[in-house]
Amino acid sequence: MVSRHLIPFLCAVIIAAPVTAFADDLPSWNDGDAKDSIIEFVTAVTEEGGPGYVSPDDRIATFDNDGNLWGEQPIYVQLAFALDRIRTMAPDNPAWRYTEPFKSVLAGDLKGVAASGEKGLAQILAASHTGMTNEEFTEIATEWIETARHPQTDMLYTEMIYQPMLEVLDYLRANDFKIFIVSGGGIEFMRPWTGKVYGIPPENVVGSSVKTKYQLRDGVPTIVRLPEIDFIDDKAGKPIGILTHIGKRPIAAFGNSDGDFEMLDWTTSGEGLRFGMIVHHDDGEREYAYDRDSHIGRLDKGLDLGPGRGWTIVSMKNDWKVIYPDDK
Amino acid sequence: MVSRHLIPFLCAVIIAAPVTAFADDLPSWNDGDAKDSIIEFVTAVTEEGGPGYVSPDDRIATFDNDGNLWGEQPIYVQLAFALDRIRTMAPDNPAWRYTEPFKSVLAGDLKGVAASGEKGLAQILAASHTGMTNEEFTEIATEWIETARHPQTDMLYTEMIYQPMLEVLDYLRANDFKIFIVSGGGIEFMRPWTGKVYGIPPENVVGSSVKTKYQLRDGVPTIVRLPEIDFIDDKAGKPIGILTHIGKRPIAAFGNSDGDFEMLDWTTSGEGLRFGMIVHHDDGEREYAYDRDSHIGRLDKGLDLGPGRGWTIVSMKNDWKVIYPDDK
Repeated sequence: MVSRHLIPFLCAVIIAAPVTAFADDLPSWNDGDAKDSIIEFVTAVTEEGGPGYVSPDDRIATFDNDGNLWGEQPIYVQLAFALDRIRTMAPDNPAWRYTEPFKSVLAGDLKGVAASGEKGLAQILAASHTGMTNEEFTEIATEWIETARHPQTDMLYTEMIYQPMLEVLDYLRANDFKIFIVSGGGIEFMRPWTGKVYGIPPENVVGSSVKTKYQLRDGVPTIVRLPEIDFIDDKAGKPIGILTHIGKRPIAAFGNSDGDFEMLDWTTSGEGLRFGMIVHHDDGEREYAYDRDSHIGRLDKGLDLGPGRGWTIVSMKNDWKVIYPDDK
Repeated sequence: MVSRHLIPFLCAVIIAAPVTAFADDLPSWNDGDAKDSIIEFVTAVTEEGGPGYVSPDDRIATFDNDGNLWGEQPIYVQLAFALDRIRTMAPDNPAWRYTEPFKSVLAGDLKGVAASGEKGLAQILAASHTGMTNEEFTEIATEWIETARHPQTDMLYTEMIYQPMLEVLDYLRANDFKIFIVSGGGIEFMRPWTGKVYGIPPENVVGSSVKTKYQLRDGVPTIVRLPEIDFIDDKAGKPIGILTHIGKRPIAAFGNSDGDFEMLDWTTSGEGLRFGMIVHHDDGEREYAYDRDSHIGRLDKGLDLGPGRGWTIVSMKNDWKVIYPDDK
């Protein structure tokens, strides 16, 4: 609440402010087609009376998280969390020293973990992500994200977010867009920190989930996380997740891998002006360079079919002045 | 955008406005414990520095729909929609004249429909609610709700919303609450009109759902509704639906039947100040009187256990000056 005594002062400031002097909304973007395409789209859909105008209610923009808002190499952050969690829980689970996939996790043997296949990954997921109440899991994820660091940069994971994308979020918000994360990552793994890190509240996060169960514990209502996948928010799952949570088709979608293909295709095939963008990780010096052959964040179909669909392909190397906020 | 020339005038108005002159926020509520309990709760959680203060991010309030925001007698509005839809589709389905449950629907024989049991209801649901794309269903539901009328009052269903509850929605919004519908009704049946009728946008609607499938039709991405239940947002399903969509426990929950019990119990057992409210349909003259023995909107457990949990039990007869907006 603004103090009443400040109002005359604030009004004087508002009246005195020049109308046209807007700073660059995307200062970390180099001038070029990618930056232009974002600004042209936003300008067109917000111009009242213009042919591309979209009312604020329908200005829905969806963002993938891993590789789009923050890094995903050398392994997904959530996998790093799961592995750390297994290490933390190991003293209470002595048998893990002799049984896979836990043995490999505790030995720091990522190849051994990979060799345990989908079944091994499911066991790691179950042990690290389920069995507790939802509120307990939130606490565990919150504590971890506040201190965990990237194995190569030694930065906090939440410092390895992409400054140019933060500017896109701010720019869209300033133009009355409603912004949602739509990620293959776990919905309850993201929710504890997306508000602080991206300004995106929990109710605007869509992700993969495990089944849960409502349960009275000593008469107190709780929700317990079960070791069973409920929904995979990836590929064709993304439009389904969007429809479930948001109830309408976005007008803009941002991603970086073929896991985002259906989200972008569904978004940009709607009527009226639409916007699709793919971040291409082509900067091996400042970040990582990977696309068609990568196991993580594979981008193949999007590079082939995206341009023909009018999607903007962003070169991290050429279009971004900086990668992380601290680079500024 | 406000014209620059108006700003000095607007500022003068803001500065001159008396700070204390607030009108009654709940004018359709009679003075009494129910009204007081709402105002006391909202005052306490919004008082900065006070012991009950809750930051706006956590001011989540959830509302059941049927029987809480609009009527549910003599049959759920969505069932009336389904039956109408069967009648509309009947000319293209001649066999329905000879097969149950459709035969009973077309004969207007509600007892016959009821006799077809859950299986019959599932067939009616499948025929009326699935097989089309999501956008086609939205159009069908929108057209219906704009013209369909209640069999006894001849009012539009959207006119049979509860004026005192609209005032609660406005009052909470004015106090920076985030408001969600959490209903056993179909999520996609509600979303087309909750914005216009309650000011609640599609992304803030939680409800029951059918499974859907992402599908290319002639190369165009669509989402098709399948004849299979995905989620029932009722009873213990409500806390699960809330967690899935909102990601946190509400601080206030409003309902009217035992289908809302778990939502209220989960909400009010959280830490800090919490609010639970049950609308008791005890006004047979102005609306309908029903509770423990009703097949629709049964309220039994809530009447027994609610008061001991500190929930406000609202008497429609005694606490509400008017029922519908047109009664004002």
